[in-house]
Amino acid sequence: MSEKKEQWLEDLIRLTEEDTEKKTEKQIKILEAATEIFAEKGYAATSTSEIAQKAGVAEGTIFRHYKTKKDLLLSIAGPIVIKLVAPFLLRDFAKTIDMPYERAEDFFRALAKDRFKFVRENMRIIKILIQEVPFQPELLEQVKSLASEIVFERLKRVVQHFQEQGQLVDAPPWRILRTGASVMIGMILVHVLLVPDFSIDEDEEIEYTVDLLMYGIAGRPR
Amino acid sequence: MSEKKEQWLEDLIRLTEEDTEKKTEKQIKILEAATEIFAEKGYAATSTSEIAQKAGVAEGTIFRHYKTKKDLLLSIAGPIVIKLVAPFLLRDFAKTIDMPYERAEDFFRALAKDRFKFVRENMRIIKILIQEVPFQPELLEQVKSLASEIVFERLKRVVQHFQEQGQLVDAPPWRILRTGASVMIGMILVHVLLVPDFSIDEDEEIEYTVDLLMYGIAGRPR
Repeated sequence: MSEKKEQWLEDLIRLTEEDTEKKTEKQIKILEAATEIFAEKGYAATSTSEIAQKAGVAEGTIFRHYKTKKDLLLSIAGPIVIKLVAPFLLRDFAKTIDMPYERAEDFFRALAKDRFKFVRENMRIIKILIQEVPFQPELLEQVKSLASEIVFERLKRVVQHFQEQGQLVDAPPWRILRTGASVMIGMILVHVLLVPDFSIDEDEEIEYTVDLLMYGIAGRPR
Repeated sequence: MSEKKEQWLEDLIRLTEEDTEKKTEKQIKILEAATEIFAEKGYAATSTSEIAQKAGVAEGTIFRHYKTKKDLLLSIAGPIVIKLVAPFLLRDFAKTIDMPYERAEDFFRALAKDRFKFVRENMRIIKILIQEVPFQPELLEQVKSLASEIVFERLKRVVQHFQEQGQLVDAPPWRILRTGASVMIGMILVHVLLVPDFSIDEDEEIEYTVDLLMYGIAGRPR
């Protein structure tokens, strides 16, 4: 995995949760250390004493801030969930809601590009998410409620806009979005996780993948 | 999660690895107990003493058969990897290699149907796979080598056959297969893991999903 520090991590830890609850330097160090060790060894195999050692604090300090190791995980993964979702809103959605894309494919291409970059830059945290989110009911609920309330509703409107223009097929928007998300996530995970050494031209890969998504693998009209 | 026993698990444990190495009743009990507890709590959080207790054997018995907890995981996940791959070969591929499907969509529909059933019946083991395979280099290598040598090569031939018939677009077969697999895995995971309470008609869902895969979300020719 990349040794490169995820730049947003420290900022994120500083800024997330309520603005009212400012984090101390020690808390930031604890959260950073926990993220690194969770990503490396997995949540269950990580002891709070290791986290304390890496963060350079006493183990008691951790428990003053976080009642349990699970609270610590939720403190990390909660904000991350927001972070995974927020860029959609902030970076892409600000644009997509104003409809700067003339064509639906431009919209999907831009999302794919942005997510590819995000995954490459944030592998450690994504490892935690893959391993913990699907089976931690609290985190799964967080993802689902953010996904449905904010992201899904906004994406749905974009899809409906393109449907009205006749650019997307007249299917339920959730089915179109699920298909689009699956194709992009599949592309990204294959290249980042499964065959990272298989070198590709990322832009070209995105281009061909968006084409398959838009026009199907049949290569001919119905 | 389903309390239902995965029927194939015991058979599998009996049959896998080399035929030469017959498993004893005790080994089967240990592997079953380990599978259940790993799936419930995750690999790292599971102790060998818990496994021993659930299997009704002494902890020393486990270490007589498996040097480490990791050996035990590999004993489970290795065969499972084969099992995940084998049904493709045995159930679907025997048919698909003889080309019983006239149309490419029939082929993808049959795969989707079979995998949906498989995932519903085998959630416990799939939890282990999702959590452990991507980050255990040995398991990932096992998956990759099986996937590339056996499954991918055979699927590629089917795709090429349909390409020769003009039924699939003239793109690299791996890109067509990745797109198809992503769309199906996305459909299955959303319904089984993310919104299991959202009731769907499975056949209808597969029908619409295969249609989106084949003809794209644009709903019009290029």
